Amino acid sequence: MRHSARGQVDPFIVMDVMQAAAKAEAEGRRIIHMEVGQPGTPAPQGARDALAKALEQPLGYTVALGLPRLRQGIAGLYRRWYGLDIDPARIVVTSGSSGAFVLAFSALFDAGDKVAMGFPGYPSYRQILKAMSLQPVGIPTTVEDRYQPRPEQLPDDVQGLILASPGNPSGTVLRKDGLAALAEAAQDRGMALISDEIYHGLSYGRSCHSALEVTDEVFVVNSFSKYFSMTGWRVGWMVVPHSHLRSVERLAQNMFICPPHASQVAALAALDCIDEAEANLAVYAENRRLMLEGLPKAGFTKIAPPEGAFYVYADVSDLTQDSLAFAAEILDKAGVAVTPGLDFDPDRGATTLRFSYARSTEDVAEGLRRLAAFMAAR
Amino acid sequence: MRHSARGQVDPFIVMDVMQAAAKAEAEGRRIIHMEVGQPGTPAPQGARDALAKALEQPLGYTVALGLPRLRQGIAGLYRRWYGLDIDPARIVVTSGSSGAFVLAFSALFDAGDKVAMGFPGYPSYRQILKAMSLQPVGIPTTVEDRYQPRPEQLPDDVQGLILASPGNPSGTVLRKDGLAALAEAAQDRGMALISDEIYHGLSYGRSCHSALEVTDEVFVVNSFSKYFSMTGWRVGWMVVPHSHLRSVERLAQNMFICPPHASQVAALAALDCIDEAEANLAVYAENRRLMLEGLPKAGFTKIAPPEGAFYVYADVSDLTQDSLAFAAEILDKAGVAVTPGLDFDPDRGATTLRFSYARSTEDVAEGLRRLAAFMAAR
Repeated sequence: MRHSARGQVDPFIVMDVMQAAAKAEAEGRRIIHMEVGQPGTPAPQGARDALAKALEQPLGYTVALGLPRLRQGIAGLYRRWYGLDIDPARIVVTSGSSGAFVLAFSALFDAGDKVAMGFPGYPSYRQILKAMSLQPVGIPTTVEDRYQPRPEQLPDDVQGLILASPGNPSGTVLRKDGLAALAEAAQDRGMALISDEIYHGLSYGRSCHSALEVTDEVFVVNSFSKYFSMTGWRVGWMVVPHSHLRSVERLAQNMFICPPHASQVAALAALDCIDEAEANLAVYAENRRLMLEGLPKAGFTKIAPPEGAFYVYADVSDLTQDSLAFAAEILDKAGVAVTPGLDFDPDRGATTLRFSYARSTEDVAEGLRRLAAFMAAR
Repeated sequence: MRHSARGQVDPFIVMDVMQAAAKAEAEGRRIIHMEVGQPGTPAPQGARDALAKALEQPLGYTVALGLPRLRQGIAGLYRRWYGLDIDPARIVVTSGSSGAFVLAFSALFDAGDKVAMGFPGYPSYRQILKAMSLQPVGIPTTVEDRYQPRPEQLPDDVQGLILASPGNPSGTVLRKDGLAALAEAAQDRGMALISDEIYHGLSYGRSCHSALEVTDEVFVVNSFSKYFSMTGWRVGWMVVPHSHLRSVERLAQNMFICPPHASQVAALAALDCIDEAEANLAVYAENRRLMLEGLPKAGFTKIAPPEGAFYVYADVSDLTQDSLAFAAEILDKAGVAVTPGLDFDPDRGATTLRFSYARSTEDVAEGLRRLAAFMAAR
């Protein structure tokens, strides 16, 4: 049977690492997981309790834009986090941030359109764009710019711009003035702006600014996956301009019908579980402290300042020109799974690695001990 | 901000009916719902119990293709229903059948490609195709052909064919030889075949044949929504040829990450709740009996033989040339919500209506009484 060209997207390289790690574990080895981008913690207790109670209800389709109370609750988060009053009508509950990107790209871009993003960046931006017959355009960012694009780097003849703050893999955060300058430059060039804010709530010292603080002409994407520790639940959201509500609603009706009802019930209750989310954040903060101390000591010295999320992105060009082989060597000799940079930067990722500190502090400490021993023996 | 052309999909007309029905209910009227395409029953008790028990687990991301045990369980369904041995590796768990269509269209078609389907048909086929820069091509079907396309009707220069059996809105079922002839004709013309089997399990007298009984060169789409009464859970599946597994897996990783984990847990347990599903089916069978008796008595005489699903599609060309206004009149005067045919057939739906009998038998009986009184007074 026929294959499409756009369906031939790149594999996730990290999947090979995960498979190799699983194989080692099946052989009895204990592997420390610094490759995964998800919390080891479950959804908040209150979220799980609320769903358990709701299981007697039919949980049929919800309206396409999501439960009205959940949309109101998310609007409350914008008041709490940024002091912003967002009309709940602008909030679209989605099937994870993945679903939000599919909807945003459908509503904004036609086949052949180009969408820019900083490299390194989340690999699925490129792959979803390709699957939808759109062309990703990478903007090479530097550690000096904290791996975020500058306004003067925006390419010509491009229809959209994806920003990510805190970034993945870098963990770096855009300042408010940088965000404003990028939003303005995008608008001047007629580029639609998409701001990925999935790691908001997970920042250390410096708080994160929403693109909504500087413009209403933006699709903001967020999710319950990270701060609320609900990855597998597939419930996220978008804030869209009033001008795009109707088209996004119709697309959502047809492409998704609705986000998973049970997950929406859990997410609504999660909004009241801030104490538990903040307790998780305290663990990440301690893990980050250990990483910033331990990674340079082990020999990974060129790292971006990880101001948010739960990643450290390291330039390992002094150690290897083949991050794939290097990651395999680290897994084999140190028993630590890490992600080769090629997932995030097809051009320059052969000399970078991403370390995740999303799991327990014990695991992070053990991983750092192993990395130090590995590097000392190298 | 910019709008895409492909994002301008048609609204669901039934949504206007539902809104008008909700308004009437808010004003204190009792409305009988024959417009909705979902069971009134909850997920099977065993499914909800299994999830309640699993809520202590983290429920993080699953692998993109779904829980291995669920894929095996679905393979078991193919043995039970059709006597087919399907390699569980070919089964892709999806975020509802909606997610399955997005993945299938991405894997099979490039921007500009044309995909044929019988009119009347499920409206989201057309809208998802449009949102993905593909062109829906309607094949006009007739009540004489039980609203299913004939092989000689397949248009030239078209890259794909969607079949639906039992059909929505018609409820008609393709015979095995008809399915084989259509599959062969599609293959001869180089058209990719997609078989929507979401209403399998819901048939009356005559059992449904899977396209997999006549060819392996097909994407089969199904879901836990209908037979297992799990609409809002957003968990469905596809069976794909071995040749397309890798591309579908990569697309799923990037566009969805995974189907909702909690829903997968519930779906796995639902596979063991056949008694409850069959009890629901017995209710639909009784509802259908009442409809086939009551609709012609009321004056809706030109109906397709509803061999499956829970719909009756009626030709009302002797009663109206404006199904939209007619449905509004029925809602206003009879207090029964029905769906204008224009959702399913943009060309000829102005003279058709869809009646759903997915809710309780009491509701169906009351709806039929009201329809009879309305028609008698007309």
